[in-house]
Amino acid sequence: MFWSKSFIPTLKEVPQEAESAAHQLMLRAGLVRMLMAGVYSYLPLGWKVLNNIQGIIRRQMEAAGAVELLLPALQPQELWVRSGRDKDMGQVMIRFSDRRGRKICLGPTHEEVVTELIKAHVFSYKQMPLVLYQIQTKFRDEIRPRFGVVRACEFIMKDAYSFDKDQQGLETNYKAMHDAYNRIFAKCGLNILTTEADSGVMGGRVSHEFMAPAESGEDLVETCPKCRFARTFKEGQKGVCPGCNTPLDKVNTIELGHIFQLGTKYSEALGATFLDAEGLRKPIIMGCYGIGVSRLIAAIIEQNHDDAGIIWPRQISPYKALILPLEADRDEVLRAALDIYRELEGLGIESILDDRDERPGVKFKDADLLGITLQVIIGKKTIQDNTVELKLRRDSQKFIVPKTEACKKIKELLSG
Amino acid sequence: MFWSKSFIPTLKEVPQEAESAAHQLMLRAGLVRMLMAGVYSYLPLGWKVLNNIQGIIRRQMEAAGAVELLLPALQPQELWVRSGRDKDMGQVMIRFSDRRGRKICLGPTHEEVVTELIKAHVFSYKQMPLVLYQIQTKFRDEIRPRFGVVRACEFIMKDAYSFDKDQQGLETNYKAMHDAYNRIFAKCGLNILTTEADSGVMGGRVSHEFMAPAESGEDLVETCPKCRFARTFKEGQKGVCPGCNTPLDKVNTIELGHIFQLGTKYSEALGATFLDAEGLRKPIIMGCYGIGVSRLIAAIIEQNHDDAGIIWPRQISPYKALILPLEADRDEVLRAALDIYRELEGLGIESILDDRDERPGVKFKDADLLGITLQVIIGKKTIQDNTVELKLRRDSQKFIVPKTEACKKIKELLSG
Repeated sequence: MFWSKSFIPTLKEVPQEAESAAHQLMLRAGLVRMLMAGVYSYLPLGWKVLNNIQGIIRRQMEAAGAVELLLPALQPQELWVRSGRDKDMGQVMIRFSDRRGRKICLGPTHEEVVTELIKAHVFSYKQMPLVLYQIQTKFRDEIRPRFGVVRACEFIMKDAYSFDKDQQGLETNYKAMHDAYNRIFAKCGLNILTTEADSGVMGGRVSHEFMAPAESGEDLVETCPKCRFARTFKEGQKGVCPGCNTPLDKVNTIELGHIFQLGTKYSEALGATFLDAEGLRKPIIMGCYGIGVSRLIAAIIEQNHDDAGIIWPRQISPYKALILPLEADRDEVLRAALDIYRELEGLGIESILDDRDERPGVKFKDADLLGITLQVIIGKKTIQDNTVELKLRRDSQKFIVPKTEACKKIKELLSG
Repeated sequence: MFWSKSFIPTLKEVPQEAESAAHQLMLRAGLVRMLMAGVYSYLPLGWKVLNNIQGIIRRQMEAAGAVELLLPALQPQELWVRSGRDKDMGQVMIRFSDRRGRKICLGPTHEEVVTELIKAHVFSYKQMPLVLYQIQTKFRDEIRPRFGVVRACEFIMKDAYSFDKDQQGLETNYKAMHDAYNRIFAKCGLNILTTEADSGVMGGRVSHEFMAPAESGEDLVETCPKCRFARTFKEGQKGVCPGCNTPLDKVNTIELGHIFQLGTKYSEALGATFLDAEGLRKPIIMGCYGIGVSRLIAAIIEQNHDDAGIIWPRQISPYKALILPLEADRDEVLRAALDIYRELEGLGIESILDDRDERPGVKFKDADLLGITLQVIIGKKTIQDNTVELKLRRDSQKFIVPKTEACKKIKELLSG
């Protein structure tokens, strides 16, 4: 990609609306723009980041045996009356009537819809276990949208649903999802606290939350500095570790994932039953597993930035390399940059070339702000020496390499 | 993928609700299910087909220089008042107020939102040309949803927008998109008629439609049987070809794509201007380019099916091969099927293995219904002979090959 062909409106100033480091950097690096409070456009760089995260999630979901589908955003309100959650959702659920008078809502989550679907097609214990998932846009009428994409009215979620014939099956799927979540967050470069949590409006007994420590996080987690114990903070809870009696620390976090052993709450309410091996009719046993995909971006930035900008973990970086011809108006500089761009393309390494007619200072600042893993710097000096300068964004480590060996070294640094 | 791990609820009977061949087959092959009139869930096979189509579109958009982003579904109604289209949209646009009293609509299209975005960040002729696109869910309150995903209230669209400093730039982008559309439809295995069309509510002067001939199509196109002339049918229009005076044929079609030279309609209404090389302030010149992604599935099926079921074009097929162990309860049959499954996996050929405990007749019927490009048939007989039977879905051509050479032959047939 050439910078001039993409749409990367970087900002020098910190935007007034930004309430957290991640929010500031997402605006400054041109990842997102607000259309109205709680509603964001993902610009090309933000979309690429989102895409990389979705790729990681998909691979881990498939490895855990989950199958992707896509459920609708428009749902009949009547389904929510039948599950008993119509009132629970209150004003958070967006509702309206269409021109034919149908009472419709915008799905804030999909337990009802997926249970109806399974009810119509799963009749026998032989058809289970089954795990379905989707990556889809959800809608919530947040009374106070905050922190950019973290508490938004329109956001992207990965929601998975498991269907089993018995509790043991549910527990197997629950563990597989728990493990998949740990791998997803690790691959996203995230440090995560896992806590036993309240099931709240979702129902069921066992549930775990995946919380990313972040200064701007609104959820408090208590952690033990000695053992790995962690739990959701609750007012009035005894303040020492139940494992080793050590006083607990309080940490601000962003909730990224929540998994639930739902049991039969939805299958009983909506009548999703199956015949077991003995021919007895039983309600299907369900679990559900959510990840806030768009808010993952914010959490990754909260944990991966410095004063100059974002520092993308390698797998998340919108491009692997940013090529910086320092005087792009000099033919020889631009030519050398293009050579490297094409060679990287041939190696399957996606890069972006900053072909703007800007001063080196502007390009360097934007490069650090954008946070792309590796910078490839080409200027008068390096052209004279027939070299290229490589700089890793994370630790600013620099390498001067002969131009002919640049791409080999880039490949090595990116896989290291 | 193993059939038993996926969710493919095939139907033997033709569902009552189905109004066209494609609609019937999408339901029978387990691609989609209706949640309510005009609102569909994409089941795993349908989602994979959708994904393949999206992949083709993305590759052609990028090749044409377009850059992907993601705009919101929630939009302020006020934007539509400013563009003057609030009234034009009438009841088709879904509108509601949120709990804070904000007047919101669900985007039926995104000219307004993208123009606002560009207005805030494009100031100079140097920042153009620019082409942005997204693949996104749109909402329309159809008074009479029909033909399954063809006329739906929630559907997936690819919408692209070009921004230029002059008419010549617009024409260049328009041609690039026109060419990209031809390549997209060809790769989707579609026969398409291109017509000059009315710009209607979108505005602008030049516009073309891409229409797929289909028995169930609701749009009439007149075509010349001698030359390649085609135009939208209009009552009272003279009935011979303006090129060669031949009487025109009438063809039923489904509209799949529509491209517009918008000109300055939106940039003037919303004040999106730039400074040209002489420092003069001018409105940005726009084009917009839409493809109905989800309805493409229906058009592909309309043009690619027989009495037994769907016949997917190779690039669209949800899996490349369907492996049919005919007596899956026989160890040796299942083992041979698994060997081929794993060997194909190693070759990067995605296959699905029908591991259901069903009679051969059921498996054959479902195989033809699903329409996967190649069937790999393994039974008692082939095991005895140490062979495998390969069958191409499209022409029923059969090949008996030694088991050890099966995957090589499969690869050859799929690339042929």
